[in-house]
Amino acid sequence: MIKIMALDVDGTITDQNRIICPEAITSIKKGIESGLQISLISGNVIPVMYGLKTFLGINAPVFGENGGIMYYNGSIEKFFDKTKPLEFLEYISSRSLATPYFTNQWRETSAAFSMDPGNEAIVSKEAEKWNLEIVNSKFTWHIMNPGQNKGYAVEILKKMFNANWDEILVVGDSDNDNAMFTLPVKKACPDNATDSLKSISDYVSPESYGYEIGDVMAKFNII
Amino acid sequence: MIKIMALDVDGTITDQNRIICPEAITSIKKGIESGLQISLISGNVIPVMYGLKTFLGINAPVFGENGGIMYYNGSIEKFFDKTKPLEFLEYISSRSLATPYFTNQWRETSAAFSMDPGNEAIVSKEAEKWNLEIVNSKFTWHIMNPGQNKGYAVEILKKMFNANWDEILVVGDSDNDNAMFTLPVKKACPDNATDSLKSISDYVSPESYGYEIGDVMAKFNII
Repeated sequence: MIKIMALDVDGTITDQNRIICPEAITSIKKGIESGLQISLISGNVIPVMYGLKTFLGINAPVFGENGGIMYYNGSIEKFFDKTKPLEFLEYISSRSLATPYFTNQWRETSAAFSMDPGNEAIVSKEAEKWNLEIVNSKFTWHIMNPGQNKGYAVEILKKMFNANWDEILVVGDSDNDNAMFTLPVKKACPDNATDSLKSISDYVSPESYGYEIGDVMAKFNII
Repeated sequence: MIKIMALDVDGTITDQNRIICPEAITSIKKGIESGLQISLISGNVIPVMYGLKTFLGINAPVFGENGGIMYYNGSIEKFFDKTKPLEFLEYISSRSLATPYFTNQWRETSAAFSMDPGNEAIVSKEAEKWNLEIVNSKFTWHIMNPGQNKGYAVEILKKMFNANWDEILVVGDSDNDNAMFTLPVKKACPDNATDSLKSISDYVSPESYGYEIGDVMAKFNII
């Protein structure tokens, strides 16, 4: 039986333009009413995740910066540091390889940027030299500390709610969801997910962009 | 003809528990598709308003801190300063009259707090001595600079979009919406609004907590 459902945000409960799917809100509400713990794990900043928790009525912790920071019960917990990601961002920006992203003012454990697709290989190689990771959430690029990923956040949820692996269901659509899809949890994705995620999912919904949430919950006997 | 619609958030597009009304999202989308500029004006902090703008697909500027700060086109503009509100908050907290609110870490032009209802009269009197205003958004109390209110934000929208007063429609439900309801604009409110707002509204919807948005738009021939 599923106890915890961890959802990505962009492209998973929103459309391509990041607008939230009204049906996903209704499905989330039903899931919580049926006793499920629902968490959001996103690359976005923690005040935005705090807002989403408030306005969607999310009951479990929410994670920002791909798992680097958590908001729950009125307090924030940081698991990583932003010093090195910011130094790296300064370095690649000074070489005109990247443009810092607007929301960095609210980031506390990582840094975000945009870049020309042609620079991806060189920036990736430089990040490796610095012992950092870069990951794409479709909307922006993120510079992460080693081990800072959505899988880290799912492990925190597992401990916090004393759950078995197979009592956890993750739903995501993009490369920055890969880390939580490699855990021995249950996995589902919308039809708009990457082929890589589809190939390792227990269930690929025929629905997309938030409309899959209710379908996935039905498939796993949650609602 | 209405060109600009300025919406309060809590209690106006959300329910009593602050959960966003799925039907309000659909109505907002229809309004924007029909050519309307839709703005949100809330007591909440600017990163949360940035999140709401993103996830609801809002097209006009969004305002936080009851009009003290604006996000639009990738940049933030501050119209007031938080120094004096924070000094006042420290003063009333030191006298055990108030408890600072969690989101103050993201506030840039005001301060928020909670208090025992019995302290309202004394805190209000102290604020007057300091030449500050306190206002209740139902969810928390806000310490504002003189002239910092939602009416100020509506005047900015008016200039920005070169609109006449009667081309602007405001919708709100609480005391911190009063300032925008005293302008010569069109006014509507949900059934859950205060009696004071209802008494000066051009239209009081029979619907509440976000379900009124579509009804109000129909009443003013927007959709």
